[in-house]
Amino acid sequence: MSQPFPQHPDLEPIAFLLGRWRGEGKGEYPTIPPFAYEEEIRFWHVGKPMLMYTQRTMTPADGMLRHSEMGYWRPAGEGRLEIVLAHPTGITEIQEGTVSGSRIEVSSSMVGLTGTAKKVTKLERSFDVRGDVLSYELRMAAVGQPLQRHLTAELRRVE
Amino acid sequence: MSQPFPQHPDLEPIAFLLGRWRGEGKGEYPTIPPFAYEEEIRFWHVGKPMLMYTQRTMTPADGMLRHSEMGYWRPAGEGRLEIVLAHPTGITEIQEGTVSGSRIEVSSSMVGLTGTAKKVTKLERSFDVRGDVLSYELRMAAVGQPLQRHLTAELRRVE
Repeated sequence: MSQPFPQHPDLEPIAFLLGRWRGEGKGEYPTIPPFAYEEEIRFWHVGKPMLMYTQRTMTPADGMLRHSEMGYWRPAGEGRLEIVLAHPTGITEIQEGTVSGSRIEVSSSMVGLTGTAKKVTKLERSFDVRGDVLSYELRMAAVGQPLQRHLTAELRRVE
Repeated sequence: MSQPFPQHPDLEPIAFLLGRWRGEGKGEYPTIPPFAYEEEIRFWHVGKPMLMYTQRTMTPADGMLRHSEMGYWRPAGEGRLEIVLAHPTGITEIQEGTVSGSRIEVSSSMVGLTGTAKKVTKLERSFDVRGDVLSYELRMAAVGQPLQRHLTAELRRVE
């Protein structure tokens, strides 16, 4: 997590995300049984006007890896934010929305799917950071189901 | 680059990519002056049926960071490959194509763009690995220009 580059001034509105976060979340969806997960999220920068983002979730009982994501968070001026993400499940997200204080609200303007990916059509994400606590909610429309809550989690900054 | 997980058997067709690669490339496009770059690419796995991929390029003279990408490479059965990528420039790629021996050919079935991204409409990538040498070509249609060569590079496995 060494950050040898000066922080780009455009990052100031989302600098509250920087660091490593760990915590727990729960998932639900009409097509699957509810589940719990552990999660680690990292945000870092390399001197450019975007944050690098990686994430992984684990099964609480045995620490087995479940999901992961990677991508970039781009301040887009005037309280706007763009997020570009890749999922190992064959999905990409173009997310666009707002940053207001330490509250982020984004909605997918495009979801990309490989031929073998699950049919996800819409993803909305919201994030709140209060001190060293990050909470988020992810809403998803997929496999014929309407947009609805899929994931909620709360993490603490550990680094 | 520690890989404490057993390699998933589905990765065998693209296991020749695993490792850290360093080398040089050159770029060209009708709308910009030609340029040279240094590059580092890493492929690793976490026991799942996909490779994790990160890449960065630097200006040769001063080592300043230029571009980077992150994403996942997913064998999709029967010589097929899917690649999902995020770019810090506000672009996502869904790439689909073939693996034949150590030759990979993929073409974008979807390019995602944030509102502030450059208008890229098509990306094709090809990769060849011979022993410890990886060469690739990237062809791009963007900003009204037809699909044409944009990047070529040759890297050596260093880890």
